[in-house]
Amino acid sequence: MNSTELLSALQWRYATKKFDASKKIGAEDWKILEQSLVLSPSSYGLQPWKFIVVQNPEIRSQLKAASWNQTQVTDASHYVVLATKEKITEQDVSDFIQLNSDVRGVPAEKLKGYHDLILADLVNGPRSAIIETWAQRQAYIAMGFIMETAAMMKIDTCPLEGLDPSAYDAILDLKGTGFKTVAAVALGYRHGEDGYAHAKKVRYPTEKVVQYL
Amino acid sequence: MNSTELLSALQWRYATKKFDASKKIGAEDWKILEQSLVLSPSSYGLQPWKFIVVQNPEIRSQLKAASWNQTQVTDASHYVVLATKEKITEQDVSDFIQLNSDVRGVPAEKLKGYHDLILADLVNGPRSAIIETWAQRQAYIAMGFIMETAAMMKIDTCPLEGLDPSAYDAILDLKGTGFKTVAAVALGYRHGEDGYAHAKKVRYPTEKVVQYL
Repeated sequence: MNSTELLSALQWRYATKKFDASKKIGAEDWKILEQSLVLSPSSYGLQPWKFIVVQNPEIRSQLKAASWNQTQVTDASHYVVLATKEKITEQDVSDFIQLNSDVRGVPAEKLKGYHDLILADLVNGPRSAIIETWAQRQAYIAMGFIMETAAMMKIDTCPLEGLDPSAYDAILDLKGTGFKTVAAVALGYRHGEDGYAHAKKVRYPTEKVVQYL
Repeated sequence: MNSTELLSALQWRYATKKFDASKKIGAEDWKILEQSLVLSPSSYGLQPWKFIVVQNPEIRSQLKAASWNQTQVTDASHYVVLATKEKITEQDVSDFIQLNSDVRGVPAEKLKGYHDLILADLVNGPRSAIIETWAQRQAYIAMGFIMETAAMMKIDTCPLEGLDPSAYDAILDLKGTGFKTVAAVALGYRHGEDGYAHAKKVRYPTEKVVQYL
């Protein structure tokens, strides 16, 4: 993909208001989108998240009612709820270090410095006080990744913050799991009648938002 | 770009530890990266952010000292500080509605419903209590966008959270502007000696992080 195509994919993307409920994302395309979540970067590589892909129509209806009745929740081909950890525990850090050790074939003892650094920051350090916020931010990187990946594939998306996280947690049985809903992304194909598809993108001038020092 | 190329770009990306200070991102490539920030989605499309591209080597040195001396701050070709609004005011909402009106040629009166909706949510509603956190989250979408765009262009990146936001605000003269530093992204080209470039990516198994309901 050359620069012109890249830019045009970014310009093509918009927050889809009305999805064509009859059009579904194919299994192979979905695999790429799923991997764009899995491969998203996160602080320390800790992946403090869970992505819940809701396919059950009954659950989708319940989520719609907890999302100001936005039709994207039920009409989109795929609906992903992003949930993040309420807190990071010593166990989480140990599990992550063990994963590093397994994947890279490095003895866990050799990763003790890394282990202690994360522990001192996220579990016992200043960031532990804002750990829920910290985890939520990471999920927004993943949100960016799946939306941009979709745009590259000419698949439409709509990010959703207008939802009741607590109601979502109840519907999705997240209570007691240590994960909480933070936001969602609907993915699929725009409806021919979505007027917003042709609306001009509203952006402040580049020189207002990008400053060079 | 086909699905295989897309996936391989996502796998190619890693948090670059050591940049080759002699390699610079070309002006045309930079324009695309800059636009990937500008075109990033944000809640309501409100763009509660400012992106500061620091080119001055003296300022870069000062920022490095406020970033645990991470070499990426000074060695990367481009260094972008992401700053977000401390709060959203009625004026911000009016300005944004005026921008909508100008860009789309719709009289501002016709956008009153939209205006009031944002006001009731972000300025006077429940979200006003967490508005700083809300704005910061939006910046992480943009962080995701610029990192993924770079990966598509075979340009390396490293996101930085390990920095002292308050020291950054002082160095960048943000005090009193209503904007505060939230994080940064270094962009450029990996150094031939960055061992992490060939390290296996550490991810939990897909079935652990992606759940289907």
